[in-house]
Amino acid sequence: MKRIGVLTSGGDAPGMNAAIRAVVRTAIYHGFEVMGVERGYHGLLDNMMFPMNSRSVSEILQRGGTILKTARCEAFNSEEGIQRAVEVIKSRGIDSMVIIGGDGSFRGARDLDDAGIPTIAIPGTIDNDLGYTDLTIGFDTAITTVMESVSKLRDTSSSHERMFVVEVMGRNCGDIALFAGIISGAEEVIVPEMPFSVKEVAERVNIGVDGGKSHYIILVAEGAVDPYAFTEELEELTKINTRLAVIGHLQRGGSPTATDRLLATRMGARAVEELRIGNSGVAIGLKGNVLTTKSIDEALAVRDRLSMELYRLAEILAR
Amino acid sequence: MKRIGVLTSGGDAPGMNAAIRAVVRTAIYHGFEVMGVERGYHGLLDNMMFPMNSRSVSEILQRGGTILKTARCEAFNSEEGIQRAVEVIKSRGIDSMVIIGGDGSFRGARDLDDAGIPTIAIPGTIDNDLGYTDLTIGFDTAITTVMESVSKLRDTSSSHERMFVVEVMGRNCGDIALFAGIISGAEEVIVPEMPFSVKEVAERVNIGVDGGKSHYIILVAEGAVDPYAFTEELEELTKINTRLAVIGHLQRGGSPTATDRLLATRMGARAVEELRIGNSGVAIGLKGNVLTTKSIDEALAVRDRLSMELYRLAEILAR
Amino acid sequence: MKRIGVLTSGGDAPGMNAAIRAVVRTAIYHGFEVMGVERGYHGLLDNMMFPMNSRSVSEILQRGGTILKTARCEAFNSEEGIQRAVEVIKSRGIDSMVIIGGDGSFRGARDLDDAGIPTIAIPGTIDNDLGYTDLTIGFDTAITTVMESVSKLRDTSSSHERMFVVEVMGRNCGDIALFAGIISGAEEVIVPEMPFSVKEVAERVNIGVDGGKSHYIILVAEGAVDPYAFTEELEELTKINTRLAVIGHLQRGGSPTATDRLLATRMGARAVEELRIGNSGVAIGLKGNVLTTKSIDEALAVRDRLSMELYRLAEILAR
Amino acid sequence: MKRIGVLTSGGDAPGMNAAIRAVVRTAIYHGFEVMGVERGYHGLLDNMMFPMNSRSVSEILQRGGTILKTARCEAFNSEEGIQRAVEVIKSRGIDSMVIIGGDGSFRGARDLDDAGIPTIAIPGTIDNDLGYTDLTIGFDTAITTVMESVSKLRDTSSSHERMFVVEVMGRNCGDIALFAGIISGAEEVIVPEMPFSVKEVAERVNIGVDGGKSHYIILVAEGAVDPYAFTEELEELTKINTRLAVIGHLQRGGSPTATDRLLATRMGARAVEELRIGNSGVAIGLKGNVLTTKSIDEALAVRDRLSMELYRLAEILAR
Repeated sequence: MKRIGVLTSGGDAPGMNAAIRAVVRTAIYHGFEVMGVERGYHGLLDNMMFPMNSRSVSEILQRGGTILKTARCEAFNSEEGIQRAVEVIKSRGIDSMVIIGGDGSFRGARDLDDAGIPTIAIPGTIDNDLGYTDLTIGFDTAITTVMESVSKLRDTSSSHERMFVVEVMGRNCGDIALFAGIISGAEEVIVPEMPFSVKEVAERVNIGVDGGKSHYIILVAEGAVDPYAFTEELEELTKINTRLAVIGHLQRGGSPTATDRLLATRMGARAVEELRIGNSGVAIGLKGNVLTTKSIDEALAVRDRLSMELYRLAEILAR
Repeated sequence: MKRIGVLTSGGDAPGMNAAIRAVVRTAIYHGFEVMGVERGYHGLLDNMMFPMNSRSVSEILQRGGTILKTARCEAFNSEEGIQRAVEVIKSRGIDSMVIIGGDGSFRGARDLDDAGIPTIAIPGTIDNDLGYTDLTIGFDTAITTVMESVSKLRDTSSSHERMFVVEVMGRNCGDIALFAGIISGAEEVIVPEMPFSVKEVAERVNIGVDGGKSHYIILVAEGAVDPYAFTEELEELTKINTRLAVIGHLQRGGSPTATDRLLATRMGARAVEELRIGNSGVAIGLKGNVLTTKSIDEALAVRDRLSMELYRLAEILAR
Repeated sequence: MKRIGVLTSGGDAPGMNAAIRAVVRTAIYHGFEVMGVERGYHGLLDNMMFPMNSRSVSEILQRGGTILKTARCEAFNSEEGIQRAVEVIKSRGIDSMVIIGGDGSFRGARDLDDAGIPTIAIPGTIDNDLGYTDLTIGFDTAITTVMESVSKLRDTSSSHERMFVVEVMGRNCGDIALFAGIISGAEEVIVPEMPFSVKEVAERVNIGVDGGKSHYIILVAEGAVDPYAFTEELEELTKINTRLAVIGHLQRGGSPTATDRLLATRMGARAVEELRIGNSGVAIGLKGNVLTTKSIDEALAVRDRLSMELYRLAEILAR
Repeated sequence: MKRIGVLTSGGDAPGMNAAIRAVVRTAIYHGFEVMGVERGYHGLLDNMMFPMNSRSVSEILQRGGTILKTARCEAFNSEEGIQRAVEVIKSRGIDSMVIIGGDGSFRGARDLDDAGIPTIAIPGTIDNDLGYTDLTIGFDTAITTVMESVSKLRDTSSSHERMFVVEVMGRNCGDIALFAGIISGAEEVIVPEMPFSVKEVAERVNIGVDGGKSHYIILVAEGAVDPYAFTEELEELTKINTRLAVIGHLQRGGSPTATDRLLATRMGARAVEELRIGNSGVAIGLKGNVLTTKSIDEALAVRDRLSMELYRLAEILAR
């Protein structure tokens, strides 16, 4: 009899619940048991877990966040932390783990697997900053939230003939800014991966204004620039009334979109299927329409790159 | 033949377009002509206007912002400004005006009426800070936006067992915080009209935590407290991880709700009916389900009060 | 010690959960106990109930439907039915009841009160067909759902230059059709309370088409006309491609709007306050912004009337 | 100098406007001119077209439907029809065409290309029934609309302990039912591609009811079964109150989702890039994350298949 433990770790992402649901129901379908671990690795060390059945995951498909809660855990990043985790896991009769989270969580998953607990990693992070997969769970919902926010800002931007600088998440990865920029029709997108010059931005704004544009939306990834200084400088250079809007934690919440629900459901089910056939130490990914597996180490080693097709597209469409 | 000028002024509010549409279509229905003045009083002084017909207002009912654009205008607050406006109005054959905006815009409307231009004022402001009317255009959409934002923050608040301090608009009027607090199930509401103590808030949070509450949402009106200091102090007193979320300009945008569309449509139509029967110098208001009129001066004189029924309700329901 | 029973009955309406939450939390605030009765009067006769505390109503404010479930119950409409209900109520130590529902549920509430159980009625029905109150719980959400549906139909209507006949709920009361018609910018509204002629509708459509209108939305209350025959006849008379869309049960669901959450919360709290001061046999209503009470019999006797202000407004704005 | 004609044909799909915008702006970026043809092939035969510039496509990214309008056209399916179209195209100085639509529209595109007008086809149809591409424009928005509708039906289904049979679009292709079923957590999915038995469905429902399920949602593609007979039979076999909800034309409308906006934008831009490099007679497709091209004939020849991974997933998750 297999008993699978499942936990969510790191920043929460919409669709994590859909993944949990798929893990639980697929496991039960195959006759396995499931233990839900609370508060990520932190809860694992503290032995906080409970048995889950099909009803435990009723009505969670559409809910943002994670019913298992999540936390960051320093203690886990040590030899003792991992040993303690392995003890807890074994003491509860768990023989394999599914970890849902971002790159930090993946490292924990790899360590558990290395320590002898067959473990599967599922990419749950709104940042889409894992290069080995086309898409991470939560990203589509996050860019949808930004898209809806920009739509509201555009109303007032247009009425007041103002410019808005909109700061979105993304310390090292500009995907939220880039994708959300394209689907929102933003006039400029500033990402950490690409150089930019405030002066050139201001020049393009001025050309647009001469061409009759009455409002401007500039999307800025948090890792690309200090948004306060940028806003001030841009206002000075263009003489256009400019405001800063910080989308912030809204990006983490919300009912997952169709795309995220489907992705999370497929990945959750696949994680269990992998364990079932004896595979472990792998990360589930999406390449195109197809689910893939790759060793967690290899997955972590793939550098995340900005799509040049999309970056160029953003430039062309803003004209 | 009557020719009515319509303008929007001050901060934009969702539903202004619905009001413009109703003004235009009701006027045309009665055989009047309509001129749309752009950029509020500023555009009026600059003679920026254009004739509107039934098609000019197609497909705007559902749009946020204002197609007439809006602006603040210092020049209008002077004897000369008003004289200049009267000249422009007369030179374009306009014989009466409809002004949509907040209290500043109302003062301008009164001045125009005093200067001999029959004028009607419609309350368009998200703040709901005009005491003579139960509701202003845009308020319901603004609290709906806050409600949806809080719902997203709650997802992540709950997953991380964090507390969120959420700053909403309202310098002197706590209505957005209070109403949005009740409909979002916020645990605390801080408004400019009522005293509060961070220590007492912290104590109630601690009692809630002991009672099993795992997440806290505290709504704060911008005029009530410095949200950064408040957040820091609260975190210190409760030892709970606390974040600040500033909703900001999102509150001004968005497609108007059913309530705002209906209110704006009724008020726009009524403004024209008042002009038609020879009434002027009045503000359209809502008392209960019934539209009312009151002289603009009297309307401005009514002090806006916080609803004690609702304030008490917020306290009871948060337990 | 007071023990209050609460139940929902008849068709479900968004906001019923918000009302339940307010009843429970207000009761607990005042030191009362609450029993939740399941499945309306049917469950009452079957003694299906459970104690509720503050946590029982966590996270339900935003949920459509009713966590207490609801049902129609023929057995209750008899002397024995009511006697049986009174016995159950007493046997569980309940000393007063709060009933949330429409006119059928109100009659049950009155019968319980007449039989010696102090009872308060809260108007929960999407139809807004109770004349004694300006608004019933669920109505604003229902017209919002229709508004959003019409917005989608307008996209395709406009692209294909088609006309849509849209059937909405309302057997005897045209409020959903009328209010939703105004806020959706429908070209025609057909309600049970007012006569109409397909020929005249067709003539107005033809005039609009000559004037450049490329799409038509006609809202029809289910009680006003057979929508299939109407659609066919209209297509024949106008020679315009015409489709029927039936909104149906969607109108009952969905997360309640700001307006419905506030209304339901206020009414739920007020019901408990009334019991607390020894009042009973009354229905909570809204007149303007103010909550009112009226004996249930009197409330049922007030004839529901269509608003002529709004009916006329719909006509004017469609031009 | 290149002059590109663009038209939308067949049933409208959300995202068509985003594709038009991308075609226009990419063409202008490269120094080409664009003519917008109205009402599909019908308008082409009637020489209904107008020059488009960057401003022609402002503010359409977020709009459902198609600003170019669409229609079915029998006359085009003939040798003379195509000859007439070629004459019109040449007479307006147009040297290449972009056609956005479904399989019928693709056949027209191929015929135009065969007749010497370089033509690119873009898959715009909510049905996702073109086998050569992973995704068609409009599909993600359509399943999102179904997902939101099912969410509302679930509220009332759960409150009344009813079963809902929900009919969605899909004559030959069950993708809407299947995908929407998974992301909505439907208990059963009935598609044209797979056999099913009402009796077995009823048995599974009865097992679920015994296991404590209180509400059932069954998604049915229109091409799979007569929904009225199916609903009646199911009610008889299960003795559970069962209702039919027909989502209908709502599925065609609505603001496009993030996924559809991105897909449409990429495909529109790519179509112009293909013409620019001298390619024609091809359909743009998506395989995984990558845009592909295939001759229109080959694209039409690829049989559309139901995903067995997803079909099985729907079964597992409903348990």
